Amino acid sequence: MRKIEHIGIAVQNLEQSNELFAKLLGKAHFKTEIVDGEAVETSFFQVGETKVELLQATRPDSPIAKYLDKRPEGVHHIAFDVEDIGMEVSRLKEAGFEILNEVPKLGADNKLVVFLHPRSTNGVLVELCQEQ
Amino acid sequence: MRKIEHIGIAVQNLEQSNELFAKLLGKAHFKTEIVDGEAVETSFFQVGETKVELLQATRPDSPIAKYLDKRPEGVHHIAFDVEDIGMEVSRLKEAGFEILNEVPKLGADNKLVVFLHPRSTNGVLVELCQEQ
Repeated sequence: MRKIEHIGIAVQNLEQSNELFAKLLGKAHFKTEIVDGEAVETSFFQVGETKVELLQATRPDSPIAKYLDKRPEGVHHIAFDVEDIGMEVSRLKEAGFEILNEVPKLGADNKLVVFLHPRSTNGVLVELCQEQ
Repeated sequence: MRKIEHIGIAVQNLEQSNELFAKLLGKAHFKTEIVDGEAVETSFFQVGETKVELLQATRPDSPIAKYLDKRPEGVHHIAFDVEDIGMEVSRLKEAGFEILNEVPKLGADNKLVVFLHPRSTNGVLVELCQEQ
């Protein structure tokens, strides 16, 4: 785990939240992206070496829509940058963590991503990201 | 906002969570600290330029105890490193954010800290931290 790659925040309205976070962070988001596989539209703000990623559902079956059906807006996941995602998945599985997708999938920013179930990580949805 | 200073995670049992996060992050915490003013015991893990801070209540009236009375363990707050906390508080107040303590208080790691109410920040409890 080399750094916090990003902090994902679930929001209801990306346009309004982009304005809010621009005021909070003192700078605008630097890009938006639709990730079809996850049914989300995202925007990114750079803060030091880490990004704040806002996430809005694009369809009712989006993981973000399901999350917001049950909970208020807020921090959805923490993503860690890893050098070799296959090696990290093996290491963490061996250590007893529950891997949600053992085969890495394509996330935002053209990264390979794997999620760990929050019930094995003190309630924190953990994402591993590897640059391709 | 220069960087993410730390991510605060509310836990029930610091000793168990220290072991869990050591396995997750592949390294041990580098210090623990009791912050009397907040009634918490904390431990810190370094990940790149950011820290993961685990928080356990030391008294039933601790903000962390109250938080965990209502919610499961998980991400409690996101802390941003700022150069001049007074200037940031003025800027954010002017921009419409709800400041929980306008007078900075002493947080962990001997930093001056101010919190913003999550209802003004998309459900994210935001902490501003200034090195002294």
